[in-house]
Amino acid sequence: MLKHVGVVALSGSVILSLGCASANPPLSAEQSDPKVMGWMQGFPPAVDKRVMQPDSNFFSFPKLRWSVCHMRELLPTANVARDPMQASALTYALDDGIESITYTPMGASETLTWQDFLAKNYTDGLLIMHKGQVVYEYTTGCLDKHGKHAAMSMTKSMTGLLAQILVAEGALDENALVSSVIPELEGSGFGDATVRQVMDMTTAIQFSENYADPNADIWTYSRAASPLPKPEGYTGPNGYFEYLPTVQKNGEHGEAFGYRTVNSDVLGWLIARASGQPVHQLLSERIWQPMGAAYDAYMNVDALGTPFAGGGLSANLYDLGRVGQLMLAQGQLGETDVFPREVAQAIAAGGDKKAFAKVGYTTLPGGSYKSMWWVFHNANGAYAARGVHGQTIYIDPTAEMVIVRFASFPQAGNAAIDPTSLPAYQAIADYLVAK
Amino acid sequence: MLKHVGVVALSGSVILSLGCASANPPLSAEQSDPKVMGWMQGFPPAVDKRVMQPDSNFFSFPKLRWSVCHMRELLPTANVARDPMQASALTYALDDGIESITYTPMGASETLTWQDFLAKNYTDGLLIMHKGQVVYEYTTGCLDKHGKHAAMSMTKSMTGLLAQILVAEGALDENALVSSVIPELEGSGFGDATVRQVMDMTTAIQFSENYADPNADIWTYSRAASPLPKPEGYTGPNGYFEYLPTVQKNGEHGEAFGYRTVNSDVLGWLIARASGQPVHQLLSERIWQPMGAAYDAYMNVDALGTPFAGGGLSANLYDLGRVGQLMLAQGQLGETDVFPREVAQAIAAGGDKKAFAKVGYTTLPGGSYKSMWWVFHNANGAYAARGVHGQTIYIDPTAEMVIVRFASFPQAGNAAIDPTSLPAYQAIADYLVAK
Repeated sequence: MLKHVGVVALSGSVILSLGCASANPPLSAEQSDPKVMGWMQGFPPAVDKRVMQPDSNFFSFPKLRWSVCHMRELLPTANVARDPMQASALTYALDDGIESITYTPMGASETLTWQDFLAKNYTDGLLIMHKGQVVYEYTTGCLDKHGKHAAMSMTKSMTGLLAQILVAEGALDENALVSSVIPELEGSGFGDATVRQVMDMTTAIQFSENYADPNADIWTYSRAASPLPKPEGYTGPNGYFEYLPTVQKNGEHGEAFGYRTVNSDVLGWLIARASGQPVHQLLSERIWQPMGAAYDAYMNVDALGTPFAGGGLSANLYDLGRVGQLMLAQGQLGETDVFPREVAQAIAAGGDKKAFAKVGYTTLPGGSYKSMWWVFHNANGAYAARGVHGQTIYIDPTAEMVIVRFASFPQAGNAAIDPTSLPAYQAIADYLVAK
Repeated sequence: MLKHVGVVALSGSVILSLGCASANPPLSAEQSDPKVMGWMQGFPPAVDKRVMQPDSNFFSFPKLRWSVCHMRELLPTANVARDPMQASALTYALDDGIESITYTPMGASETLTWQDFLAKNYTDGLLIMHKGQVVYEYTTGCLDKHGKHAAMSMTKSMTGLLAQILVAEGALDENALVSSVIPELEGSGFGDATVRQVMDMTTAIQFSENYADPNADIWTYSRAASPLPKPEGYTGPNGYFEYLPTVQKNGEHGEAFGYRTVNSDVLGWLIARASGQPVHQLLSERIWQPMGAAYDAYMNVDALGTPFAGGGLSANLYDLGRVGQLMLAQGQLGETDVFPREVAQAIAAGGDKKAFAKVGYTTLPGGSYKSMWWVFHNANGAYAARGVHGQTIYIDPTAEMVIVRFASFPQAGNAAIDPTSLPAYQAIADYLVAK
């Protein structure tokens, strides 16, 4: 399976990527721009310029630079509806000075310019808001202002936000055992975990993501989650509801953080059971509609139409800006309480730092994970939604700043992207604070 | 394949249905309401209540009554974007008197009530506009005010409208040979047809829709158009661009009307070549955005992402009302010309009645087909977009009336639905004229 840089374990709706070192440097952002590559131009596109199912690995670099804007054309999806009559206005206070910001990447000595920041991270879209106003906007590649981009694991943060809202409202008990909400999970590794342990990914489950092992759990999961017809003779689980009960326990819950996407799909199931609504509909009713999203979003689904709560969202750049601003404002939008203040406060406060430290992420020292959001515990109190290939909603309460970035970095893991990203976010915050 | 009433030849994105008589009467509208049937309720839905790919025939009655509102969850799609910042207002002048309308079906003696009209046609949504105002609205079953419903072959009328616009603007020559616009079609049956013959479906091509014959063209077409991975060993065409050049000629173009969906897909190709935009994008830019649609629409696609110009659209009831009103107003929306007046005038004037009469449709005597719209040539000058299972946008210039109906009638062919539908539309027109 490991054929080239950015090789992806994508089987149907499960989007899981593996960053691995390559002998040759990948194409630059400019070289790999989908318009430069010429993907899918013309009627029909040239044979060597096609990105399609199933014979081309559409989520490998550089094809992924096209695919991140076109997920719904490749796979079935469920709509996350906006309120058709009401988009909340975004006010503008554009600041040219931002383009003069320079910064030093982690572990490096050279100084990078703003153009370096955009290009080295294969940025597709960037939105910066300060004190609720748009101060910077940028789209390129497959993305334009009206487009939608795969949010990858930022989807988890939407799922976690919905769960935190249900907890605040008393509709979901964070101390309850998973099996008390979903009896079908009683015999699984999740059965005796608490809802909170699922929300914070401190469950102890057996889930191998060793992509080199064809028997690894990740492949079983991918095959189960695919909405495409199963191969002849397939006898495994079909969809999240059939796969999740097969996951086994491995250790004691609550001791260590373990970033495993299956937790997010269990959480999606939990909030569907607790609310009576599928995740995409809950996301529409509790966030997309009340926050005045300007665009519908959508989620990839399995064969049973179940949205992929761990990674299936595609959304517009400005709408994720609205989400970030809503978090920064602790749920307040003008005179409206979209959700209780304690929701964002609980997330921003962070989770179990000791449990998190056991993973040893070098780019996230002293961090934690709470309700599927990454908390940096830095001086500014910043926290973020994050997704592979460079996606982020970065919220800095001190700087009153929200950054949304869509990217299509060749490698998946953020460990490769953080060094040229996180110091830039801090530099932007510093610039805005000093203004 | 012929297992039960409403059996459908649906393979991937090609939606083609066959109405056939049944020994037993089908479930009534009330009995087959998807909520009553309990399709896809719960997390997960009960095994016998699932509507999914590929093992359940999701487009057969009564499952189709759920599926018509959920096409995107079953298949890949392309977005037809609205203008996010601008929905045109619909004004209301609701008229309770409409529910007292009675009428006599074709070839019948009994009088039907309004409730009969709704129920006997398995109505999912009904919108009536008079002099530009909404006078009646109704949704049930899988549809609500915000939902989207499969438009079926009404898609053709959108494709035809776009083509007529390009013709009016001089971007597409209706007298040109197809092969002059699409050289790839030179060796096919379409090569020496004119663009106008394609638009009016007077091409003479070999295309068997004999569903009982496993070698019929319709099956080859269906397999080609499916966006799902092809079966192992499949060597046939993949997608519209590969299938259409294989269609052969059979007779002389221009002599007889022949309702063959492949014409619409050739027309989709023609307008994509002429405009440089895929059909879904052209529909967005030329109709959905300028008319102030309140909702995005979407189109099913083939494996190459090509939208199904002959039947792939799903749209909101009120947005199709906006389309109908725009046709009635000959392209005028307030002070704006969305398209030139001659576009709607050309369509309303109708096509070749002699060519049409050769088909012998008993419910459409004296009619014609122009730019993929059905023209009744009745006293009121009515014309319509029509789709299987009861879909219509019915435009009556004399009564200044637009009716949009979504339905999920057990049988596909409108010949079975027209007797209880067309006289009702006329009765509504008479009522509104007499007001």
